[in-house]
Amino acid sequence: MMASSTSSSIEHTMLAASEQLQVPSSITKFKIGLCQLSVTSEKNQNLACAHNSIKAAVKCGASLVVLPEMWNCPYSNDYFAKFAEDFENEDASPTFSMLSEAACSHGITIVGGSVPESSDGQLYNTSCVFGPDGKLKAKHRKIHLFDIEIPGDITFKESDFFAAGDKPTIVDTGAPIICYPGDFNISTGELLWEVMKRARAADNQLFVASCSPSRDSSGSYAIWGHSTLVGPSGEIIATSGHEETVVVAEIDYSKIELQR
Amino acid sequence: MMASSTSSSIEHTMLAASEQLQVPSSITKFKIGLCQLSVTSEKNQNLACAHNSIKAAVKCGASLVVLPEMWNCPYSNDYFAKFAEDFENEDASPTFSMLSEAACSHGITIVGGSVPESSDGQLYNTSCVFGPDGKLKAKHRKIHLFDIEIPGDITFKESDFFAAGDKPTIVDTGAPIICYPGDFNISTGELLWEVMKRARAADNQLFVASCSPSRDSSGSYAIWGHSTLVGPSGEIIATSGHEETVVVAEIDYSKIELQR
Repeated sequence: MMASSTSSSIEHTMLAASEQLQVPSSITKFKIGLCQLSVTSEKNQNLACAHNSIKAAVKCGASLVVLPEMWNCPYSNDYFAKFAEDFENEDASPTFSMLSEAACSHGITIVGGSVPESSDGQLYNTSCVFGPDGKLKAKHRKIHLFDIEIPGDITFKESDFFAAGDKPTIVDTGAPIICYPGDFNISTGELLWEVMKRARAADNQLFVASCSPSRDSSGSYAIWGHSTLVGPSGEIIATSGHEETVVVAEIDYSKIELQR
Repeated sequence: MMASSTSSSIEHTMLAASEQLQVPSSITKFKIGLCQLSVTSEKNQNLACAHNSIKAAVKCGASLVVLPEMWNCPYSNDYFAKFAEDFENEDASPTFSMLSEAACSHGITIVGGSVPESSDGQLYNTSCVFGPDGKLKAKHRKIHLFDIEIPGDITFKESDFFAAGDKPTIVDTGAPIICYPGDFNISTGELLWEVMKRARAADNQLFVASCSPSRDSSGSYAIWGHSTLVGPSGEIIATSGHEETVVVAEIDYSKIELQR
């Protein structure tokens, strides 16, 4: 269950694969890369930065790469509409093209964090997943939009700008993992980022990967960072601070068997 | 969701009140007492110890008192059947009598942790809730029995001895709180006790109280302790170590309003 109006509801629920899926017997472990990207107000720079980070993850052996929530666009009302792309019109979407090419050229799966999507006059906070053939495998629109108001601390209302998606997304990548591209702030991040991911992993006895942008000291929204991979006992396998970085860690299916 | 076979599934799901319940407008705050009891192999001593601990909590202002899982009986296969009582036969149940009298004489609500119950030839791990009039308000039989096997670490199989209950229990005490009488061991306790309680509180935006026995250095089952009250943002309001103690802390309804 995800609550709908506060700090526990911020990010996507993107299932790269559900616990119902069979773990393929031929593969027993692989590496995941979490790209904690620095996001600027220049979209081209963000695309180049993401591409480089994906390459760095691949170089470290990652065959599944996860990007943060809102990685091609500052997390600010001033930019969402301006940066939005229509994914139905692939050729006119530089973000779609870059992710598709990167997935194909490296032969990897990419959970493309999220970016603003424009569709039929609406904006969505949308995550695209690309397979090793470069094809779009799934598109997830954030369901539980992030509206927060803590007097004297932070006020942000995503629902003023975005429409909500209406369904969870399950993608068969063969990996028993829940992916949360997220963008917690330092208030909710310190309180809940880690505890929520660990609880989801232990509840479902699978891996949970969360990927955040890095903190931008000049931005209006102070980002928590701390991209993390949690194992099926709720244990932290790898994590980071709030700086730009790539976290590469191993997903070993035998840990799930042991835990279950 | 509670998983059914491992460390996240250990304790009762005892809802002293659900989030659906209206918060009574006349009361805005009250105190809860968590009695982290030392459990011995002498039942009479355990009853006396619990009674004294309840008195201590009342002296500190508690009007709702929670006892640990398996507080009148060592958490060991050697004792469950021997210590079991039939709550249908109240007069022959010293545990029932003590809790009822304590609730009535102090005018408080008691969530009676759990004790072994014998009924129709079965054993259950059962929690009784008594109101300020001393009457039994609810009886909850543990649903997700605790079966664990970590080679070289710990093996315990509750389902060898207990039958499982078949439903959650909701009691209208007016308090928006989930109570978990629990008895984690040090392996699962260090990993999951705190994170699970904090996640449940934040998910449901209400209070979560967990109450454990204290650690018994001579016992075969090393108990985690750490009885804890968590607030509706997932924040720890009060907690303890693993020694015998009473945790008394305030439940302030305005924290729920603020969070929601």
